Amino acid sequence: MDIVKTICEDLDAIRRSRPLVHSITNYVVMNETANAILCLGALPIMAHAPEEVEEMVGMAGALVLNIGTLSREWVDAMALAGKRANEKGIPVILDPVGAGATKLRTDSSKRLLNEVRISIVRGNTAEVATLAGRLAEIRGVESISAADAAEVIAREFASQSGVTAAVTGVIDVVSDGKRTAKISNGHAMLSRVVGTGCMASVIVASFAAVDSDPFSAAVGGLTAFGIAGEMAASASGEKPGTFHVELYNALCAINSADIKAKSKVEIQER
Amino acid sequence: MDIVKTICEDLDAIRRSRPLVHSITNYVVMNETANAILCLGALPIMAHAPEEVEEMVGMAGALVLNIGTLSREWVDAMALAGKRANEKGIPVILDPVGAGATKLRTDSSKRLLNEVRISIVRGNTAEVATLAGRLAEIRGVESISAADAAEVIAREFASQSGVTAAVTGVIDVVSDGKRTAKISNGHAMLSRVVGTGCMASVIVASFAAVDSDPFSAAVGGLTAFGIAGEMAASASGEKPGTFHVELYNALCAINSADIKAKSKVEIQER
Amino acid sequence: MDIVKTICEDLDAIRRSRPLVHSITNYVVMNETANAILCLGALPIMAHAPEEVEEMVGMAGALVLNIGTLSREWVDAMALAGKRANEKGIPVILDPVGAGATKLRTDSSKRLLNEVRISIVRGNTAEVATLAGRLAEIRGVESISAADAAEVIAREFASQSGVTAAVTGVIDVVSDGKRTAKISNGHAMLSRVVGTGCMASVIVASFAAVDSDPFSAAVGGLTAFGIAGEMAASASGEKPGTFHVELYNALCAINSADIKAKSKVEIQER
Repeated sequence: MDIVKTICEDLDAIRRSRPLVHSITNYVVMNETANAILCLGALPIMAHAPEEVEEMVGMAGALVLNIGTLSREWVDAMALAGKRANEKGIPVILDPVGAGATKLRTDSSKRLLNEVRISIVRGNTAEVATLAGRLAEIRGVESISAADAAEVIAREFASQSGVTAAVTGVIDVVSDGKRTAKISNGHAMLSRVVGTGCMASVIVASFAAVDSDPFSAAVGGLTAFGIAGEMAASASGEKPGTFHVELYNALCAINSADIKAKSKVEIQER
Repeated sequence: MDIVKTICEDLDAIRRSRPLVHSITNYVVMNETANAILCLGALPIMAHAPEEVEEMVGMAGALVLNIGTLSREWVDAMALAGKRANEKGIPVILDPVGAGATKLRTDSSKRLLNEVRISIVRGNTAEVATLAGRLAEIRGVESISAADAAEVIAREFASQSGVTAAVTGVIDVVSDGKRTAKISNGHAMLSRVVGTGCMASVIVASFAAVDSDPFSAAVGGLTAFGIAGEMAASASGEKPGTFHVELYNALCAINSADIKAKSKVEIQER
Repeated sequence: MDIVKTICEDLDAIRRSRPLVHSITNYVVMNETANAILCLGALPIMAHAPEEVEEMVGMAGALVLNIGTLSREWVDAMALAGKRANEKGIPVILDPVGAGATKLRTDSSKRLLNEVRISIVRGNTAEVATLAGRLAEIRGVESISAADAAEVIAREFASQSGVTAAVTGVIDVVSDGKRTAKISNGHAMLSRVVGTGCMASVIVASFAAVDSDPFSAAVGGLTAFGIAGEMAASASGEKPGTFHVELYNALCAINSADIKAKSKVEIQER
């Protein structure tokens, strides 16, 4: 697969078709993720009331479920929206924020994975390891590098569950169990602004709205977001407030030429 | 009526008297609309608990009801606050975000229009057409231009309901049924940042807090906001992150000289 | 006590140990306060569900309770989290936003002060005067200056309650009943951006996470935040949007040299 070509085509498709991305997400990043979606070229909508989530998701190209400031009522609404998305064939992206940190977050992530057919889980290594039932193991092994841990966990989780894993870190890893991609784009400044993980999830969802292959959608979203982070960092230096502003500018400006010149994606098939 | 003079006087009055603008609004834009109010010169307050909304609105110069991330409980609180605002003679501005998109949004907007005496509805053409019962009609007519549709809908809704309609789009239209204004200010960059419609509503509310005529308040708010958008665009180019920052700067900087030099308002009486 | 040395050591400790600061706060400032915590060097977490707040706070270095958009359910969760923080010896910072403005806010602040052992209350003069039962008195006395009122109220509240008072205004005053500090840092631009009071509270909490003396933690937090405000103002002029961005840059950039060169703290013991 010519992944760079696919990423460029997906980005063009997002800007041409402007898919609606419906998010049920946390209070902290609602504005920021909505602006990330809009800057990239898709259209954000936020709605969480049980009376309307099914109707709303029916209009969407992708659904994002993010448990960053979860409560029981919101997780109920996520399950409702997810099931309707499944019926309609709309891809569902799960961001299991803090899975492993509290029982409520672990249980709610697992519940959504059980009740909803998730296309892509986007999380960090600890979160996805929790969902794979291997958090304790990863934490106990000192000799494994962070990048290797991400790869092991992504493959393992995808193989077990049939859900594409998009594990972000210094190197991002995407696996659908058969194919595994390592993405070396991104910048340390992305860890200096709140919600960049959540933004990565909605960018992946925007790609999934125009690409029926969850693997290439996840790779495309993380590659584009990583490159946008690099562009923003070079425009802002070590200043997190300025970087945050430039990240939106970069998500708007990024184009095929940037993808071709800067993408660092390595894919293994097995 | 010398509308430019009125807008300048209203803007001065906002900065002199610093009215409290109480918003019950959506999670996505709470910070952004609060900063828009504060930058313009008024004082924002957000409160939604049924136990306190009536007490809080009693201190306010205007009340904004925005259903962008509605739930039944929040709409109940909006109705409570709206009724108390009516008793106290405080103008109520309704932003029916997504009316027509889901039944819950359409029904909730209509409920608030029925239970509360609304001064101004600020929405896009589809939202206001929904409230006027003419959404299907507008959607079915290909030959009508967007600007003409906004004008037809604004007049129709205002005539029917007695509520001033402030319909925003490429050209903004305000009508109270007798007078209709077309405002050609604004900039395409306003559609590149999330929540600028919601910001327009709170700016209109800030004007309504110091101007007892809903028509001139709505025209003033939309004209000032449109000019601020033009000022921000010229300071930021095609960069949405930078534009967002410059929009706050412009709302703070805008003054009578800007209004006099840049306003493009055309009023018809009939 | 060499307060400047203590502030510098605390700031270094925050950046070295990266304490988790758990906030149960208002919707308006969630992103902004999380970014303030992260820029300073600590790690923000937001969680409000009753099922998880006790587990989450157990991992934290400090807990912030902010009633800016309160509801009964959220105040219940604040009480739960606060009691667990007390059991674990984790400092609790209360930001009684709007105490005195509505009965719900006054009652909820008092409830939290009764049910939870609060380390530091950070508020403005009217809010802390309300908690000290002296709001009417302060409002009635025309002859007292704002700075004197803040000092009287801070001392009084701290003496009565045993809780350190951090009263912010043109001059910030911190008192634990025995020691009183006046901090002349800060800038008028801080009042042009929404949520800077809430940011001050989380910066104080970040200091409290590494400093077991609430008095020096509060003085350190307010001094560092005030200096960051001065740095941001000199980088942005009278532009509130730009100032907001530069405030994050300054919270990241501020270091011991800035503290030593710019701090204006005066401590009285009695």
